[in-house]
Amino acid sequence: MPLNELDNIAIIGVGLLGGSIGLGLRAAGYRGRIIGVGHRTSSISKAVKTGCIDQGFTNITNIADKKAARNVSERLSQAKMVIFATPIGKFAQVMAEVRPYLSSGTVVTDVGSSKRQVLALANKHLPKSVHFVGSHPMAGSEKRGVDFARADLFDNAVCIITPQRNAAPKAVALVRKLWQMLGMTVVSFSAPQHDRILARISHLPHVAAAALVNCCTKEELKLCGAGFLDTTRIASGDVGLWNDIIESNSDNIVKALKLMQHELSRLSSAIESNDTARISKFLEKARKRRQWLINHKLREKQLD
Amino acid sequence: MPLNELDNIAIIGVGLLGGSIGLGLRAAGYRGRIIGVGHRTSSISKAVKTGCIDQGFTNITNIADKKAARNVSERLSQAKMVIFATPIGKFAQVMAEVRPYLSSGTVVTDVGSSKRQVLALANKHLPKSVHFVGSHPMAGSEKRGVDFARADLFDNAVCIITPQRNAAPKAVALVRKLWQMLGMTVVSFSAPQHDRILARISHLPHVAAAALVNCCTKEELKLCGAGFLDTTRIASGDVGLWNDIIESNSDNIVKALKLMQHELSRLSSAIESNDTARISKFLEKARKRRQWLINHKLREKQLD
Repeated sequence: MPLNELDNIAIIGVGLLGGSIGLGLRAAGYRGRIIGVGHRTSSISKAVKTGCIDQGFTNITNIADKKAARNVSERLSQAKMVIFATPIGKFAQVMAEVRPYLSSGTVVTDVGSSKRQVLALANKHLPKSVHFVGSHPMAGSEKRGVDFARADLFDNAVCIITPQRNAAPKAVALVRKLWQMLGMTVVSFSAPQHDRILARISHLPHVAAAALVNCCTKEELKLCGAGFLDTTRIASGDVGLWNDIIESNSDNIVKALKLMQHELSRLSSAIESNDTARISKFLEKARKRRQWLINHKLREKQLD
Repeated sequence: MPLNELDNIAIIGVGLLGGSIGLGLRAAGYRGRIIGVGHRTSSISKAVKTGCIDQGFTNITNIADKKAARNVSERLSQAKMVIFATPIGKFAQVMAEVRPYLSSGTVVTDVGSSKRQVLALANKHLPKSVHFVGSHPMAGSEKRGVDFARADLFDNAVCIITPQRNAAPKAVALVRKLWQMLGMTVVSFSAPQHDRILARISHLPHVAAAALVNCCTKEELKLCGAGFLDTTRIASGDVGLWNDIIESNSDNIVKALKLMQHELSRLSSAIESNDTARISKFLEKARKRRQWLINHKLREKQLD
């Protein structure tokens, strides 16, 4: 069942990521209906206006108007794929809200930055009759909201999917197809593997960038160059969102922090003992490894 | 004496920075002669071809051809301003090489990333009759060489100058004028102040970026997103250059590393004790401070 034959896709949470999924699907030729569910009327109406979604709903658990309530219920139950794209701190709440409307056999995925917790929430809050396959599209921005949604946000980036062992192959294939339609390279890991890796390639860099900013006074920062701005860009990310990510992957992040501190300690003693060979080795390892990474990304067309 | 009335400027080391100074001066309307001195014939001839310099010399201490030797001697002694733009590890050598040709009253500056050591070298290797005023233009790239030189490299960035207490006001004014002509905002600090600040806004971010890369395996790196690439961009910088910078500012860098480790330790214990308030405070402090910085840079037109 190719994705563009699905009648209905529902996006729960129409911000930067949810909005970009809608725009990207449309740009990729998806012809079915895209509905969106959100909490703020302004975001939902903007999402409809900008073509991220065809129809939007807010406040779905408390609809006084019976016709409107029937409409939501009908649209959501028709959805063959439901994508949770709210911050992960909201997952428990929105899963519980959407649950009554989900039809048996629906494929459910998400965009959360850590996966063990999301999997546990899905197993707890979603009906057994739906197929949950976690996703983490490695694309985004330090900006938030549907205003920043773009059809090409996911283009040429990596998406990690985290199917459970007993996942239905058809559901996994459909989730894979979703991200491929958006231009992503899809790789598959278990949720615990994902969380271990992400602690080092995403969560640690985030907190390290914040620490670098916190080490400087404002008067010092004024003097910084472009290098500092690039290195710390991600420290401008949303605090609530990152709090949730850190909480949901705390064990791995603490381990990654210990690894970083070990690296810095070793460097610090090399500098104190004026050991040029060890300092060089440290810098050269990083330079070579990053060059390898850039070449890999260029080869895979994940970089221009 | 405005800069564009100087007959001759000499750039010692015509790479990314030296070449960009030449191109930038020309673009800013400087009409005097720009000569360049380098060690590689290929770089020097490229610098002449691309208009970075009008005339170039290599191997100035060992010129067999007497006419050529007279030519170098004449040109360098005519230079009213000499800019050292080699890596700082070469400063001792090139200062000693250029020294015999410098005329009394010549204003000498440099582009080195740490300033106490450069000042000590200048005081040791340059004649007392020249005026040395250290400079650190906060612009550059992880790339090296005259191939990457651009007229606008310094545009809208900050330049820190580090005059000694007894510096001649005219010499300081001329060095200030040089960077202003290239579009920079010039601020003045003592060399020790400069080195303390730079350890935190530049040298620490550099080694932290390298440590972040070294914390990941290649297989993990493959999965990274744009955030990781930005955070670690500076880790691709030249190893020899950075070895020299670290060596020349080791005391301040060790202090900055301790500060960073302290920040990371505190965060780590906040995460281990699930102290959401402290984690939030850490993230929020960085986010707000970086936002303040971006607003400052926008106001000062140092960012688009």
